[in-house]
Amino acid sequence: MTYETLYQEILTKKSYLCVGLDTDSQLIPPHFQRLNNPILAFNQMIIEATADLCVAYKINTAFYESMGAKGWEIMEKTLNLIPETHLTIADAKRGDIGNTVTQYAKAFFEQMQFDAVTVAPYMGADSVKPFLQFAGKWVILLALTSNASSQDFQFETLASGERLFEKVLQTSQNWADKTQMMYVVGATQTEELAKIRGLAPEHFLLVPGIGAQGGSLAEVSQIGMNKHCGLLVNVSRSIIYASAELDFAEKARQEAQNIQQEMAVYLDKYLGIAGLKD
Amino acid sequence: MTYETLYQEILTKKSYLCVGLDTDSQLIPPHFQRLNNPILAFNQMIIEATADLCVAYKINTAFYESMGAKGWEIMEKTLNLIPETHLTIADAKRGDIGNTVTQYAKAFFEQMQFDAVTVAPYMGADSVKPFLQFAGKWVILLALTSNASSQDFQFETLASGERLFEKVLQTSQNWADKTQMMYVVGATQTEELAKIRGLAPEHFLLVPGIGAQGGSLAEVSQIGMNKHCGLLVNVSRSIIYASAELDFAEKARQEAQNIQQEMAVYLDKYLGIAGLKD
Repeated sequence: MTYETLYQEILTKKSYLCVGLDTDSQLIPPHFQRLNNPILAFNQMIIEATADLCVAYKINTAFYESMGAKGWEIMEKTLNLIPETHLTIADAKRGDIGNTVTQYAKAFFEQMQFDAVTVAPYMGADSVKPFLQFAGKWVILLALTSNASSQDFQFETLASGERLFEKVLQTSQNWADKTQMMYVVGATQTEELAKIRGLAPEHFLLVPGIGAQGGSLAEVSQIGMNKHCGLLVNVSRSIIYASAELDFAEKARQEAQNIQQEMAVYLDKYLGIAGLKD
Repeated sequence: MTYETLYQEILTKKSYLCVGLDTDSQLIPPHFQRLNNPILAFNQMIIEATADLCVAYKINTAFYESMGAKGWEIMEKTLNLIPETHLTIADAKRGDIGNTVTQYAKAFFEQMQFDAVTVAPYMGADSVKPFLQFAGKWVILLALTSNASSQDFQFETLASGERLFEKVLQTSQNWADKTQMMYVVGATQTEELAKIRGLAPEHFLLVPGIGAQGGSLAEVSQIGMNKHCGLLVNVSRSIIYASAELDFAEKARQEAQNIQQEMAVYLDKYLGIAGLKD
């Protein structure tokens, strides 16, 4: 999916919501356990209940890998249920040396047809560039994550005066522009968001941490939005586990709709009518 | 596998060789293509040809993920072919927030029975500690990698005067001791190896980059060995692709044996007879 198509989808749906399919067999409604493939059936109902309210789905690979080969198959089948109008993200946080990264790129961009993959920056350019060889695909690089121990290394001040996450944001812009790269910035990091937006004014930011982790959609939107929106806000648990009863899909939709309606307000407020017709 | 058991295996075999199963269907001998499961058959023959010469096998997950669910199944079956006397490493370079890491730990330590998993440090303590909850299992944390772009971030000097990889080595020793943590240090980084050994005197170092990547076993052994050896040197391509003909297993064994015999010399030289009877 191109940058322009993603932006148009955001305008059409008045939404920059990404629904995270971190599906855990222990947390889905008990009545699914009677089915042949509970996770896939659950994912299908969540996708059907939310597709018109979101522009992206993020599949957290860990939750599928923990089921082994069968989980990998469920991940593939889930991906195939997502409409082509939606950006599909493999939240895999891979990162390795060149010839190995090419194998990961094949896994996520050829063997499966994800649009984007999250990547860890520690190993530098070699660990990112092979993903960028795939036309029309995206790297979403970890910049400043939502977890408490982002303090351990990401906030380290370098001799140059920058902090590590700032260095990552700057260096990595030599590898790809806004049409092939996004950044992960946790919603709990709003104090840093203005700075980050200054360092990467045009790139989309994938923002997890709203909901269960305590981030504020209002703050993220006010500080983080650029003239092409430039935000994908991921919500996983508070949507997909909105209810553990038979009404789970309805409740998931309601939660997604609440978020989308709030997003529509921010899009009007910060992009303005002109922006919405752009 | 415990630290003590690993050390005893090293003394018994006079080897600190780890064989890397980065098996690529494009690179294995052509006659395997006629088989039902070429990669698994190839891995089985490589394991049989090398098991008495090495103390560990490292499975690079990327090469299996690129084949999808079937690849994941081959990875599981390969793992089951490795004798219990050998340390088994999932070279997965995972790293995520807590509840997701727990899923990765389940994938590699429960669903499959790897002894160790490689982990990327960028997200800090949260992304490592859940792995450490699994008794008898190891985290192998990326410290200083063998690739050229390790320069991009790992060598950054911090305001404190340390470089990032040194900070990773120091901070992470608060999370686990030598019995649960090892570090990845590229064989191409021999200029830094003495410093690293000083910062982590007792931990095992997993050292890739001998062979195809140009690192020197002699240098790594001289500088990196501690009194319990403390080294696992990984070799992948130059062993498993030693020949693309019918004699591939024999040639792989020969290459592994050359390395093991060189290792025996270094163990005698640097640990001495006393060390070998310890």
